[in-house]
Amino acid sequence: MAITTGYTSEELRTIGAPPTYQGQQLREIAFPLGGIGTGCVSLSGAGELVDWEIFNRPNKGTRLPYTFVSLWVRPEGGEPLARVVQAPPQPPFSGEGGGGYRGLGFGVTRENGSGLPHLRGATFRGEFPFAEIAFEDPTLPVEVRLEAYSPFIPLNPDESGIPIAVLRYHLRNRSDRPVVLTLAANVFNPIGYPGTGPFIGEHLGENLNAYVDDGAVRGIACTSTRLAPEDPAFGTLALTTTWPEVTQQACWLRSGWFDMMHDFWDHFATTGTLEPRDLGPSEPGTSDVGSLGLRATLQPGEEVVLPLAYSWHLPNFQKYWAASGSGACACGEGTVWRNYYASQWEDALDVARYYYRHAERLYADTKRFHDALFASTLPPYVLDALSSQASILHSPTVLRLTDGTFYGFEGCHCDSGCCEGSCTHVWNYAQTAAFLFPSLERSMRDADYTYNLRDDGRMCFRLQLPLGSSQWEYHAAADGQMGGVLKVYRDWLLSGDDAWLRGLWPKVKKALEYAWVQWDPDRDGVMEGVQHNTYDIEFVGPNTMMGTFYLGALRAGEEMARYLGDEEAAASYRACFDRGRARLERELYNGEYYIQKVDLETAPKYQYGEGCLSDQVIGQWFAHIVGLGYLLDPAHVRGAVAAIHRHNWRADFWEHANPQRIYALNDEQGLLLCSWPRGGRPQFPFVYSDEVWCGIEYQVASHLIYEGLVDEGLMIAKGVRARHDGERRNPWNEFECGSHYARSLASWSLLTALSGFRFDLPHGTIGFSPRLGAANWQSFWSTGTGWGTFSQRRYNGRAEANLCVEQGSLTLRDLLLGSVGEATGAQAALNGDALAVTLAPRAGGVALQFPEGVTITAGQILRVSLKR
Amino acid sequence: MAITTGYTSEELRTIGAPPTYQGQQLREIAFPLGGIGTGCVSLSGAGELVDWEIFNRPNKGTRLPYTFVSLWVRPEGGEPLARVVQAPPQPPFSGEGGGGYRGLGFGVTRENGSGLPHLRGATFRGEFPFAEIAFEDPTLPVEVRLEAYSPFIPLNPDESGIPIAVLRYHLRNRSDRPVVLTLAANVFNPIGYPGTGPFIGEHLGENLNAYVDDGAVRGIACTSTRLAPEDPAFGTLALTTTWPEVTQQACWLRSGWFDMMHDFWDHFATTGTLEPRDLGPSEPGTSDVGSLGLRATLQPGEEVVLPLAYSWHLPNFQKYWAASGSGACACGEGTVWRNYYASQWEDALDVARYYYRHAERLYADTKRFHDALFASTLPPYVLDALSSQASILHSPTVLRLTDGTFYGFEGCHCDSGCCEGSCTHVWNYAQTAAFLFPSLERSMRDADYTYNLRDDGRMCFRLQLPLGSSQWEYHAAADGQMGGVLKVYRDWLLSGDDAWLRGLWPKVKKALEYAWVQWDPDRDGVMEGVQHNTYDIEFVGPNTMMGTFYLGALRAGEEMARYLGDEEAAASYRACFDRGRARLERELYNGEYYIQKVDLETAPKYQYGEGCLSDQVIGQWFAHIVGLGYLLDPAHVRGAVAAIHRHNWRADFWEHANPQRIYALNDEQGLLLCSWPRGGRPQFPFVYSDEVWCGIEYQVASHLIYEGLVDEGLMIAKGVRARHDGERRNPWNEFECGSHYARSLASWSLLTALSGFRFDLPHGTIGFSPRLGAANWQSFWSTGTGWGTFSQRRYNGRAEANLCVEQGSLTLRDLLLGSVGEATGAQAALNGDALAVTLAPRAGGVALQFPEGVTITAGQILRVSLKR
Repeated sequence: MAITTGYTSEELRTIGAPPTYQGQQLREIAFPLGGIGTGCVSLSGAGELVDWEIFNRPNKGTRLPYTFVSLWVRPEGGEPLARVVQAPPQPPFSGEGGGGYRGLGFGVTRENGSGLPHLRGATFRGEFPFAEIAFEDPTLPVEVRLEAYSPFIPLNPDESGIPIAVLRYHLRNRSDRPVVLTLAANVFNPIGYPGTGPFIGEHLGENLNAYVDDGAVRGIACTSTRLAPEDPAFGTLALTTTWPEVTQQACWLRSGWFDMMHDFWDHFATTGTLEPRDLGPSEPGTSDVGSLGLRATLQPGEEVVLPLAYSWHLPNFQKYWAASGSGACACGEGTVWRNYYASQWEDALDVARYYYRHAERLYADTKRFHDALFASTLPPYVLDALSSQASILHSPTVLRLTDGTFYGFEGCHCDSGCCEGSCTHVWNYAQTAAFLFPSLERSMRDADYTYNLRDDGRMCFRLQLPLGSSQWEYHAAADGQMGGVLKVYRDWLLSGDDAWLRGLWPKVKKALEYAWVQWDPDRDGVMEGVQHNTYDIEFVGPNTMMGTFYLGALRAGEEMARYLGDEEAAASYRACFDRGRARLERELYNGEYYIQKVDLETAPKYQYGEGCLSDQVIGQWFAHIVGLGYLLDPAHVRGAVAAIHRHNWRADFWEHANPQRIYALNDEQGLLLCSWPRGGRPQFPFVYSDEVWCGIEYQVASHLIYEGLVDEGLMIAKGVRARHDGERRNPWNEFECGSHYARSLASWSLLTALSGFRFDLPHGTIGFSPRLGAANWQSFWSTGTGWGTFSQRRYNGRAEANLCVEQGSLTLRDLLLGSVGEATGAQAALNGDALAVTLAPRAGGVALQFPEGVTITAGQILRVSLKR
Repeated sequence: MAITTGYTSEELRTIGAPPTYQGQQLREIAFPLGGIGTGCVSLSGAGELVDWEIFNRPNKGTRLPYTFVSLWVRPEGGEPLARVVQAPPQPPFSGEGGGGYRGLGFGVTRENGSGLPHLRGATFRGEFPFAEIAFEDPTLPVEVRLEAYSPFIPLNPDESGIPIAVLRYHLRNRSDRPVVLTLAANVFNPIGYPGTGPFIGEHLGENLNAYVDDGAVRGIACTSTRLAPEDPAFGTLALTTTWPEVTQQACWLRSGWFDMMHDFWDHFATTGTLEPRDLGPSEPGTSDVGSLGLRATLQPGEEVVLPLAYSWHLPNFQKYWAASGSGACACGEGTVWRNYYASQWEDALDVARYYYRHAERLYADTKRFHDALFASTLPPYVLDALSSQASILHSPTVLRLTDGTFYGFEGCHCDSGCCEGSCTHVWNYAQTAAFLFPSLERSMRDADYTYNLRDDGRMCFRLQLPLGSSQWEYHAAADGQMGGVLKVYRDWLLSGDDAWLRGLWPKVKKALEYAWVQWDPDRDGVMEGVQHNTYDIEFVGPNTMMGTFYLGALRAGEEMARYLGDEEAAASYRACFDRGRARLERELYNGEYYIQKVDLETAPKYQYGEGCLSDQVIGQWFAHIVGLGYLLDPAHVRGAVAAIHRHNWRADFWEHANPQRIYALNDEQGLLLCSWPRGGRPQFPFVYSDEVWCGIEYQVASHLIYEGLVDEGLMIAKGVRARHDGERRNPWNEFECGSHYARSLASWSLLTALSGFRFDLPHGTIGFSPRLGAANWQSFWSTGTGWGTFSQRRYNGRAEANLCVEQGSLTLRDLLLGSVGEATGAQAALNGDALAVTLAPRAGGVALQFPEGVTITAGQILRVSLKR
């Protein structure tokens, strides 16, 4: 089959702004707002809050009834106008889903005010953690722009874990007359909601809405007077502002039919005000809606920012799933624990007050991260891939357990996690949290090695909750278990935390050496036998997918053992590695790429045999990220990833026949998990083989870039993001086995690959070697101690590099610059003060050594000038 | 508010082909295939069978797993190509709905073959009862066109009630080489399905697929060996053809994961054949898929029609809803009865064999109806409104009970009827069945007056099932009860069945005179007090909505009483009518339109008071249809409908604030139920007042046309259909309180109004008075004895009219021609044979009298020539 590339090199390398979305592209957009481990609510492309996933589980497709924002404006001497602050509803208008007196055949959902006048259009821009909607409505005398975000600050997981959605409405009077306006937000009190299903029902009753004002923060506080604080459904929700001039109504009219919205809208649209109404706890089976209006008068040309926030506090997490496979959970189903965030704040008002008290700093720090990331010279779709998938950390895919442990599902079913247990093989691909919130990532390692490891070294690959539950009885995952060793190595290099490594080492060693029990008893460095893996089946026989994870783990083990003085282990790992490398090359390299050695006649179903597997050298990808060098012959590796691209990339899917799950189709681009360019496709190849997975695409894209096949890698990344264009799919939801799929956190490796980022904090080393536009480069970097930007310019035989720390600090002995060319002399200065530096050549660049070390703190810049 | 008209007169009056649909307009299309009272399955815009509503209840959004059609082609000397015979899946691709391992976050549904190669595009044309899809795929050597229909023949309800969906695939070799091809259809055996929910589950097991061939008909027969024939879930489904050269597989591979579709597709796509496989009854909890392939070799330029049909036989109807309001059903919930169609055929194969045995005639008769309707000179959107809504009769909105009685829900929830009981006030608006299947319509009257009437004349407005159940305890519906009298009058005029009228008359009289018990005890001809009505609330005080229904019923009563010799009744109805007319004019006409007389201070909520109600003269509309003349002052009536259009028509909805249900929005056009142009809007106007209902729009549009306000009426009809453009809504599903809403059957009155159709079979009279393009007119007509076309031409002082009977017969004494101008002489001929005729002038036209009567039989034409 002829494969065209789909994109030109120029298209791939052009720098510009990330995409914006309009018209039909607004349809699928849902941009998560919330904190790490707090759940989230999402901002739709039209400007609506949707998918209320704050109730300790996913909850796709939900809308909190009547919870919308309206704007009333009256130009001096003119008639008032009122609008729901959303773009118009988009077709289809038949109604969605089923149910009685709703769904298909009942028209557009009405409870969210769809039948009220809307703004005429919107342009959505999403640069996580910020979303911005520029609304359009030529009939209004004011411009309306919404800036929405939740704090997200690298190395600050707790303040990136505030259960709040902040909405900042920018309003500018573009007319020549003063304009009086009211921006009114509504909130339905959902407390009692069981986390899934309709918001209206018998779980409601004695819901209490109250208007509160402590002088600084004011708004509508929602709780329940019926539920005890330890009830799983207990909690609070608050709609607040710090704006001083407000109008409010804690409770809408309680009445039948459509009266309540009639009463609200007719009054508000006419007067721009709300009548205070406080009715006490609601009747059984019902709840109340409250509204908070912010009033302002704008002179011609004047702009104001009206701040609103929805904050929540649903402290009690109830385990709603049974133990995976292994029968009942040790602690019984339905166990309840406290969310970590519940230890930080008392209720939703406390959350809001904390936020507003620190709002300036939280906004500035989040903006600093955003700006550091987006000021890069990376192509826009790469920035988009990095940033958009970081939103998974604000999605219900991740939890923070009571002790703060970071926990991840693989992704999200519509109303439950999917699948449980920080699954080691899926989270093998994930890189974002390791680089942005290394302490969280280390807590995941801690949990893995504390709770998943058995006495014989076999690891459960799904962590059972609550922590301490009995382990799941199932195969070990060959990829997950070996990947764990590489992840420990990465997390140690990023943090420089030797004590942490020492604490884990005996367990890591045991887990690594379990390979010799299960998969490689002859210690020839090659796994054989049953190798359960991330395709949910078992490969048998030697293959380089498991093989490179194993080789990588042996090399990482060697490095860690040596550092810790365990020379015997280091030597044995190395020897095993050498044997394995040789055998894999000998037996699995077919002259173009690496195959699986398997007798399809006798093997179980679901092998790949002679296929060209996209994950065939995945361990090598990870080894590149952590700077371990080549696990296999470099030329063969480079050839293999080129072959993956050549055979598995599809510039369209018109002729692709896929009876499996469908993640790319029609005119889309994507990378298949496998193909059989030389024949030999098994009658039933491994399940998923004909699919396209974003996480694997990022892995391969990144690896191609590491190998210097930059355009090929970029092409794949661009293809992924083109499939998530707002009309086809939500740009902030790359799914696989469910939404916000953790494997897509592999996207962060595009940054490490393109910037050639090296990190070795135990040795005080950091390095960059941009693989694209090295003559004028800027990018974001982060480690366990600080984060900032790196830039370099080359001109006229000179080169200049700036390492800027935005937050935290970085202590260096060596700075490696890989793509600045050769140099004969170097100067260095920290915030303008000259520093002693020595120059050592490295392949393709230089190493700058600071004999006395240098610590760069927040706001400081280390500047290096090189000359030929 | 400034109302623009939205359309020019030229746009409204242009004649042309009904719309076709492409691209995004294919999305919402679901075109019902099935029979009257058999349920249906719908053809999607892309060519897929969706919404399997054959299981005795609605079932929106469902797809029978693996049930798709594929095409394999191999040009001589070339490589084979295989395609699913559907247009490509359309965005979004995120997945729809919830569930585990499916729904949002799991991508496009795969079980329907979405991941297999598809044809590249499609153009859908729907002219009920026929749908046609012209597929496009430049890579194929053949052109592919699907013609789908189910028999639908006026006056032939039984053969319009065959539980079958016929798919005729037209394939033409457009290449210069012979092409071998196989068209393969699949069918999943669903027997045991409870009628709602997923198709896969514990209701399956011991499902049996078998290949059958009786020499004439062959295919896959699906049944269950586990269920007894009286089990509500028992039944049969058959996929059949009469094509002689077939390849078949009764059972797909039984295997795990994705193996079964791998096995099917890999084999079929490679070879174009199917391996026979018969595995006997399925395992518990599972079922089988079968495939039937039709093989042909086409020479260059050759075309072939490959016939396929899915037929079903689910004989046992289980009542799945509780008695409305009144507590338990007399016969207990879950009562099971036999569908009428089950008395006609033994099983799905019997259905198929019957169909194929009569296929030529059934196709020709259905085509005859289609051609008679579409050969009209009506504007295309009017034809579309007539034809598309006739599809309601093939939808699950209607049933035929065991004895053949025609029964209607109001519409359909996604998986149940909504709401029950041939609701008299909703079915007041419906006209289509009365004109196309008058015997069915009369059976609905019979049921109304037999089972809904109480001793005091009060009628239950929701017929309780099974027939004979105790009546529902609730208000009588003032509009429904009075409308019933008008409907009896109509059905008698259409049928000329005096015996039928005589049988019903005592009951009709009692029902009419119940007005004097409940609403008009002083017999002043004006209803007062609590008037429950189609808005699900009660109006109080005089109003012309109830008032004109009442006046119309009195006039119809007068006519029927007089015909039956009940002069006393006739006189008293007339006297009451005269009093009422005078009072309504005196008290409710505000100089522009008719209002409700009500004290809003003391009245219950939900009145309209001074509002301009779209239904304000609905009884007059019905009176026009049945030729009763004016109920109120003609000038006032004309002014009132003009006011309705002026005030309630919206050329867009940008500024409309509607907290109620949303059936029109944004840039759409539509007619509000009410507005208050002179103020006086109640704080809580009647519920639904801010909505737009298709059925009322057709009523008003038709009435405007009857009053000569043709453009205004056409505009409304065009607006309705523009909202159902395939992208916004399904053209074959106008919904209100659910899908396929019966009120839209009012669309047929556009034909009676535009053609000025008069019918009075008891007196042997029929008439036409085209209100549009009368100089060159053609349209469809139907009565209880026959149907056909009427055309007229005017030129050079002459006029010519042709009355053609396509089926049945028509016996006439008088033919009224209302818009042919004056005439001085007339000639008439029946199939060329001169007939005696006399001419009498009538306002705007002539009456042709056939002294000896004339009977026109099928295929005959009565030709009339007139000269000035």
